Amino acid sequence: MPADAIQDPLVIFTPSGKRGRFPAGTPVLSAARALGVDLDSVCGGRGICSKCQITPGYGDFPKHGVSVGPDALSPWNAVEQRYKDKRGLTEGRRLGCQACVAGDVVIDVPPESQVHKQVIRKSADARAVAMDPATRRVYVEVAEPDMHEPSGDFQRLAAALAAQWGIAGAEPGPGLLPRLQGVLRKGGWTATAIVHADHRGGAPRVLDLRPGFDEGGVYGLAIDLGSTTIAAHLVDLETGAVRASAGVMNPQIRFGEDLMSRVSYAMMNPGGDAEMTAVVRAALNDLARAVAAEAQTEGARIYEAVIVCNPVMHHLLLGIDPVELGQAPFALATSESLSLDARDLGLSALNAAARVYLLPCIAGHVGADAAAVALAEEPDQSDDLVLIVDVGTNAEILLGSRARVLACSSPTGPAFEGAQISSGQRAAPGAIERVEIDAATKEPRFRVIGCDLWSDDPGFAAATAASGITGICGSGIIEAVAEMRMSGLLDPSGLIGSAEQTGTARCIPEGRTHAYLLHDGSAEGGPRILVTQGDIRAIQLAKSALYAGARLLMDELGIDRVDRVVLAGAFGAHISPRHAMVLGMIPDAPLAQVTSAGNAAGTGARIALCSRAARSRIEGVVGRIHKVETAIEPRFQEHFVNANAIPHAVDPFPELARVVTLPDVGFNTGGSGGEGGRRRRRG
Amino acid sequence: MPADAIQDPLVIFTPSGKRGRFPAGTPVLSAARALGVDLDSVCGGRGICSKCQITPGYGDFPKHGVSVGPDALSPWNAVEQRYKDKRGLTEGRRLGCQACVAGDVVIDVPPESQVHKQVIRKSADARAVAMDPATRRVYVEVAEPDMHEPSGDFQRLAAALAAQWGIAGAEPGPGLLPRLQGVLRKGGWTATAIVHADHRGGAPRVLDLRPGFDEGGVYGLAIDLGSTTIAAHLVDLETGAVRASAGVMNPQIRFGEDLMSRVSYAMMNPGGDAEMTAVVRAALNDLARAVAAEAQTEGARIYEAVIVCNPVMHHLLLGIDPVELGQAPFALATSESLSLDARDLGLSALNAAARVYLLPCIAGHVGADAAAVALAEEPDQSDDLVLIVDVGTNAEILLGSRARVLACSSPTGPAFEGAQISSGQRAAPGAIERVEIDAATKEPRFRVIGCDLWSDDPGFAAATAASGITGICGSGIIEAVAEMRMSGLLDPSGLIGSAEQTGTARCIPEGRTHAYLLHDGSAEGGPRILVTQGDIRAIQLAKSALYAGARLLMDELGIDRVDRVVLAGAFGAHISPRHAMVLGMIPDAPLAQVTSAGNAAGTGARIALCSRAARSRIEGVVGRIHKVETAIEPRFQEHFVNANAIPHAVDPFPELARVVTLPDVGFNTGGSGGEGGRRRRRG
Repeated sequence: MPADAIQDPLVIFTPSGKRGRFPAGTPVLSAARALGVDLDSVCGGRGICSKCQITPGYGDFPKHGVSVGPDALSPWNAVEQRYKDKRGLTEGRRLGCQACVAGDVVIDVPPESQVHKQVIRKSADARAVAMDPATRRVYVEVAEPDMHEPSGDFQRLAAALAAQWGIAGAEPGPGLLPRLQGVLRKGGWTATAIVHADHRGGAPRVLDLRPGFDEGGVYGLAIDLGSTTIAAHLVDLETGAVRASAGVMNPQIRFGEDLMSRVSYAMMNPGGDAEMTAVVRAALNDLARAVAAEAQTEGARIYEAVIVCNPVMHHLLLGIDPVELGQAPFALATSESLSLDARDLGLSALNAAARVYLLPCIAGHVGADAAAVALAEEPDQSDDLVLIVDVGTNAEILLGSRARVLACSSPTGPAFEGAQISSGQRAAPGAIERVEIDAATKEPRFRVIGCDLWSDDPGFAAATAASGITGICGSGIIEAVAEMRMSGLLDPSGLIGSAEQTGTARCIPEGRTHAYLLHDGSAEGGPRILVTQGDIRAIQLAKSALYAGARLLMDELGIDRVDRVVLAGAFGAHISPRHAMVLGMIPDAPLAQVTSAGNAAGTGARIALCSRAARSRIEGVVGRIHKVETAIEPRFQEHFVNANAIPHAVDPFPELARVVTLPDVGFNTGGSGGEGGRRRRRG
Repeated sequence: MPADAIQDPLVIFTPSGKRGRFPAGTPVLSAARALGVDLDSVCGGRGICSKCQITPGYGDFPKHGVSVGPDALSPWNAVEQRYKDKRGLTEGRRLGCQACVAGDVVIDVPPESQVHKQVIRKSADARAVAMDPATRRVYVEVAEPDMHEPSGDFQRLAAALAAQWGIAGAEPGPGLLPRLQGVLRKGGWTATAIVHADHRGGAPRVLDLRPGFDEGGVYGLAIDLGSTTIAAHLVDLETGAVRASAGVMNPQIRFGEDLMSRVSYAMMNPGGDAEMTAVVRAALNDLARAVAAEAQTEGARIYEAVIVCNPVMHHLLLGIDPVELGQAPFALATSESLSLDARDLGLSALNAAARVYLLPCIAGHVGADAAAVALAEEPDQSDDLVLIVDVGTNAEILLGSRARVLACSSPTGPAFEGAQISSGQRAAPGAIERVEIDAATKEPRFRVIGCDLWSDDPGFAAATAASGITGICGSGIIEAVAEMRMSGLLDPSGLIGSAEQTGTARCIPEGRTHAYLLHDGSAEGGPRILVTQGDIRAIQLAKSALYAGARLLMDELGIDRVDRVVLAGAFGAHISPRHAMVLGMIPDAPLAQVTSAGNAAGTGARIALCSRAARSRIEGVVGRIHKVETAIEPRFQEHFVNANAIPHAVDPFPELARVVTLPDVGFNTGGSGGEGGRRRRRG
């Protein structure tokens, strides 16, 4: 047999199917890299990090045309044994940097060993997002100084990053140089570097350096900074997993419940903008500390944050007086995305060198939160016409398809979040979240957060004894109003009938109008929960604003119906689409085509945190979104007035008299402050 | 005459000689730009800035083959008249943006109207440096916001910078966004932007924005941060002119007179490095305020600083513990150039968005100051072998030519700066700076700073009455020691003879040795100024170190003589080359080939401040300089010991018994603390 007929062993990787021949003795990790197989490593193949775990297959693989013998890989070695003893290693797994090719072999790369893990799967049919974070952790071995070839310690670190990781041209982050020499010596010229490389090709920056191989996490914050609530999620930047979530009320509320009152506060009070900037930054620091504590890590391990918010929040966060946003032409100080140092935003609870990415704003009234919704929901990739409504104190509305996407915002006010409602409360245990009213008897039944029973189910009283029945949250009031209309308690203009008119003693006089008694807990020392005429009016105003915004965009596209509707927002995820349509919050659409995207803005923030490609993508998409300014559009007023009525006297979808079960999309833990409690209760 | 025979007017620019034909009505500025003629403009041709002044020539120009009629340019217009009335305009000058071509014309561009003014002319034969600063001022007209095409104010500013000035991709500097909207509106959508664009092609950064056309200056600081003295020069970044200079003692002196004592202080005292960092930063702020006040401007108009210093100063400035520089292998934390925000160095006296550029270090003992000397003196461009000695508490020594450049540093100590000398003082009025001793009578004569007379000239007493005669500065002590040797008062080992041995009563006993009485002012209540045996020893140690460093580099090149010697340093500029050679400070060389470069490190800082090309150049050159480490080189000790003697018993250059007059190179105003006073007196 001629020598040249002896072939090198064949290595086949699954699931990629990539294959190639390598000389015996080639580490599996090296073979993977040579073939471009997506196999992770933080330590660069030194048997330290265990990120390169692989599962060799043995036996016959007719599909691949190979038969793998028991000696296809080099024997289990001491490094692997040490790792297994110390950290544990699943049976059948090997370390790709230790196991070497010895014969034909089939190697499976498990999902968690892939660099570009697909982590953010928004819903069953949506595209998953692959990990491609700006901030990553790498282990390096740095050359020792040589006085005959003098170079700085940092230059040798940068050379190591370039040679060992292909990270070229790294620069020291703020505060690194004073610590650098001590860290390198403490680690015996090995170190773990946290490197940030943005999506625009700027010079990579070494944010942090820790001696030796550092096992601690590398975290980012995805922050949805809303007018009423602020939600933060601590994301592991290597796995994409949410490690902790927290929400708080936006402390700016004391300066004004809605955006325009805060703009007014800034206009009327010199230094008022600075006050609002200070409190929101303090709240973000509190949140960062809270999620770090929950995940049992430290703020110094949070190296990046992505923040989405509306333009007024955006400007106040940046320390910009929002006065221009309060008057035509609603000029933003800056509209493009921003990459900043966290310290420039006073975010001292994060690592001192942490970076912040703010998504671009679309226009003066359509902010980075709308951009984040667009990133999460991709209306620009939709074949059919989709209406996306991000429900909040200020609603962001997107309408379009591949052909064209329009956006506007609508000042709905905080009623949908339970504020400005007589018995309103944040979504927390004890809050009424679902309501049904019997059309014949006008008797209600309801469910409260924290209990899976309806109020007329046996055992309900016992099950809710702990939380009590304390008020009604946003989704509850929407259902209550819609049910009141369907059961004849409300006329089309929204007026509550008297007991005589409606035939139920639950309609009680209150001043010159009436209120509907949803629940009387006074016998047990609890509150009487009423839906007052004022509550109806508040919901009518809010839903009219939302509807008018959507209609305005539909006018712009010259259409009467949309193909599908996506309800988004920390709160939007919990709205019953059927009741929303009864109420006239959203244009009519086939109910099956009304879905929830959960907190799409927050999901967008998390996507941008985990994927540089996503940042580039949304920056391009935002430039192509056409923005419609509701504030100066006469038709908006017209639609608003016309939308005041509550259209559906009877249930338009009797076959769907149960709320649609919304998929839990993972990211919505936390949601807005109240939603957070609500989800956690269920989780 | 056919129509196509009618040619457009011919426009000829001098001194460039560039020429072209332009339609009648073309502004001269536009013609200049089309031809690539170097004609300045800050306002973009709007008749505001007057930077584009030109001088039209009339009459016959046989050399150019044209005859220029009186109507060759459009008539003097109202814009020019208004400018002349308001600001003045030299007779015969026109504004290039207002005067339009009407016929064949010859246009002279005066030096001050050139963009790339040549400003730093180091000496008659040296290459001049053309203005090419990283920071520049431009006037822009910004589009107003349009709510139907929403974009941020900053994006419209960036678009204006790109369209009107070719400055593409500008980003907001720290603190700009909160002020942006107010400034643009105050200026009626016109503004003056201060833009920083580094030499590495990073994104331009808008450091500041002022409403309308801002007439205020744009300044930079060139800082020579020495172990003993710190000198700062306020440079107009548009003209390159030094507007003010100041010097102070380095306040770190209280932690140790030389570098190694400061390193020891840091090692022995926890937090000692931070103390030294704090005081030097405070001193830089004081200097910035002082030069701003002297130039009647404000620190907020200082947008950039270039700092040169030795590695220990460099690390302490950056907040890096210098401990590694005190022990082999003398590892720098970072060796490459650094571009930083001034606020990161605590330089709060500058504009809040100011930038700082630190030249690269060559090695652990050869710093950014040596790099600056190399930038100013260009040994790498020298055809002959040049030895450059930057005299200071730590001497930087460069030796080489186009073929190869070597560098080392030598710890001379502060004796050359008048410290450690019994009657030593900083160079200030009243200090003896020049000394001659009659070989026959052993009687001295001298000059003091602040007076042009010698001490034996008539009127000397009256002329020095104000300052008094207070001590002896660095150049004075060098001359005194050399003259003492030449007049037989010292033996070759440096021992001062007794009155009996020397035949002069000026040699008086002092302990077990003798001292030479240079001046006795006690009758007038002034000091007795003696040169003691201790002074001689201090100078011997210092000069031996200097000499040994130079010899070590010569050994490395295998040479015995150098072609020329350049004495540099704030203090080096004032050393008499003849006396330096008598003393054996520097290797023998033809005296005519010993010149002064003044404060070459400071000049290098100023060059880097004014020229981005120079920054790129020195970064390349530094990488090619071969560094020799004196601290571990046994031959250094050998040379040091051998150099202890004072070689020349007789004047080796009797024909040159007057000090060489050194050219004033413009930058040396200020020099080290004392030198500043000295120069200012003369200026």
